[in-house]
Amino acid sequence: MTKSNAVRLNCQVRVVGAGLLGSSIGLRLSSQGVDVIVAGSSPTTLKLAVDLGAGRLATEADDPKLIVVCVPPDITADVIQAELAAFPHAVVTDVASVKLEPLQALVARGVDLTNYIGSHPLAGREKGGAISAQGDLFVGRPWVICRDEETPAWALSLVEDLAADLGSVVIEMTPEAHDEAVALVSHVPQVVSSLLAKQLEKATDDAVRLAGQGVRDTTRIAASAPDLWIQILSANAENVVEILEAFRGDIDGVIAALRDVDAPGARTTIMSELAAGNSGVARLPGKHGQTRKFTAVTVLVDDKPGQIAKLLTEIGELNINLEDMRLEHVEGAARGLVELTVLPDVADRLIAELEARTWSVHR
Amino acid sequence: MTKSNAVRLNCQVRVVGAGLLGSSIGLRLSSQGVDVIVAGSSPTTLKLAVDLGAGRLATEADDPKLIVVCVPPDITADVIQAELAAFPHAVVTDVASVKLEPLQALVARGVDLTNYIGSHPLAGREKGGAISAQGDLFVGRPWVICRDEETPAWALSLVEDLAADLGSVVIEMTPEAHDEAVALVSHVPQVVSSLLAKQLEKATDDAVRLAGQGVRDTTRIAASAPDLWIQILSANAENVVEILEAFRGDIDGVIAALRDVDAPGARTTIMSELAAGNSGVARLPGKHGQTRKFTAVTVLVDDKPGQIAKLLTEIGELNINLEDMRLEHVEGAARGLVELTVLPDVADRLIAELEARTWSVHR
Repeated sequence: MTKSNAVRLNCQVRVVGAGLLGSSIGLRLSSQGVDVIVAGSSPTTLKLAVDLGAGRLATEADDPKLIVVCVPPDITADVIQAELAAFPHAVVTDVASVKLEPLQALVARGVDLTNYIGSHPLAGREKGGAISAQGDLFVGRPWVICRDEETPAWALSLVEDLAADLGSVVIEMTPEAHDEAVALVSHVPQVVSSLLAKQLEKATDDAVRLAGQGVRDTTRIAASAPDLWIQILSANAENVVEILEAFRGDIDGVIAALRDVDAPGARTTIMSELAAGNSGVARLPGKHGQTRKFTAVTVLVDDKPGQIAKLLTEIGELNINLEDMRLEHVEGAARGLVELTVLPDVADRLIAELEARTWSVHR
Repeated sequence: MTKSNAVRLNCQVRVVGAGLLGSSIGLRLSSQGVDVIVAGSSPTTLKLAVDLGAGRLATEADDPKLIVVCVPPDITADVIQAELAAFPHAVVTDVASVKLEPLQALVARGVDLTNYIGSHPLAGREKGGAISAQGDLFVGRPWVICRDEETPAWALSLVEDLAADLGSVVIEMTPEAHDEAVALVSHVPQVVSSLLAKQLEKATDDAVRLAGQGVRDTTRIAASAPDLWIQILSANAENVVEILEAFRGDIDGVIAALRDVDAPGARTTIMSELAAGNSGVARLPGKHGQTRKFTAVTVLVDDKPGQIAKLLTEIGELNINLEDMRLEHVEGAARGLVELTVLPDVADRLIAELEARTWSVHR
């Protein structure tokens, strides 16, 4: 539990839907002393969530100021509408991973959306349900807030407080920009991973024995729940199709080049596609949660307690901030490799200072 | 270092090519007391490999009984031929990730292949070079051996001993079956990951901020070296194309269904594709590719110089050895997450001691 920040929310919070996200929110807020009410249509799920410590059941006397709708996308609009009607003085947000379609549905029904603010915390696991809930699920993850010009400041700040208490980082986006972005970084990767995994259905036993980390990583999210994903993909179909078509075009290009790999230009085509993949993956904040460029400096250290600390202490004395760090054992060599990631402008100084202290440094 | 098995090899081993695989083999065997000669065309690479402890440089007096060719696929056949000629009494194996094309090239040239046995250890990383070498790279990984009927038993047993000393598990396959299998579990995932990552090139800054573990995992291997992969894909083009075409057909089906998602059968089509992905990924053995189990402990630290060193110093004082460590920034928050990986039997003590020192710890 994080103790470094004071809890911001000081009101009853009603969480509707006690699946992975709802239960994780309830767990974290409850542990911070917030009065969390868990509600939803399944008594079994609610009992599990309460048993896990995600909150308490609803009573007649409840007066929540903040309601978080954590139900599947295809009933999100219905539940938002019902909650706005039942608690007219509360702010209602939701966590659905598509933002435009539920909003359009509510607007089409003429629902007064003054007190509604769409949210999407970019957090999840390939396992669902309250049983997979984790209080720290949202720590360090982006929390998208879709406000509009009419959103009252007090309502916005309640949702911002929620995100802050869960350890998330708020990003404001329009529903349109959000849905385009998640099509690219979430929905299309899901489709591609699922269809790649599908090819393994016909694998021989020997073939699957050869599977390594590459195919495991590329197909990990193919284990996700189809009944949830059909809803997400349906609700964001246009954006997903646009990217899938570009992807399909690229696949076609590689197939054509591989069919006659000795033809002029064939290898160049494949190389440039692979290089484009290098550039694309480099766009991800990836390891560092950052889009800036860094320099990696590798140090060989003895693989025994205290050596890494000695190294880090000396780096601390140099007043150089590490952006990232990885420790890797070189098994059998009684040594480890420490990969230090720093801003480029301090890399030279770091290397010079460490070499002066007789560390074995490789750029 | 694995000490549970006695070392089987007791002869000089010559490793040609000191990249990731060659250096990793050299590291492990050297640490087991085997006399390893590292050879190759790049003096800089050889010096680094020797510095890392992967072996020694060649001399006139060398008399290796086993030669492991660890060079890029497109020169593998040439180097095998040269090594067979230079050391006619030695067994030559290689580690190239395609097995049929180099063999066919050698047969076409009329090379006597009695002393040649193709190998493919299924191990690697997305980072190459001696600097990324790890003595435990092969532990628990499959090691494919392609023998034929004429392979002498003494030659086969030398290569089996090599695999065993590296901690690998031998699988015998024909070159044809091997190449079909790796097309499915390695080469096609590489193409798909690269082309998926390519779509990120045009991502907005906001979109990449929303990237989560799913897109990171699916695109991780897109960081692989294009100049190596063009060789692998070219040498296994027919098998790769066959699977890519099936995959492309499935992508087409999902695009068509998403274009008119309310049409009869459209959602069913998508659902069944996602469910097939579930079945496919379930065919992969294990989940994590790890042979030992570790426990991850996450610590929230202030993101300023000296904090990590302070943490590591305290862990060093506890005499707890870290198996791995990751630092991740929490963007927008002046904090970082440090993920410490330790053996399970020390995790409880680590957590208790760190909490006693007022660190913010999550299991």
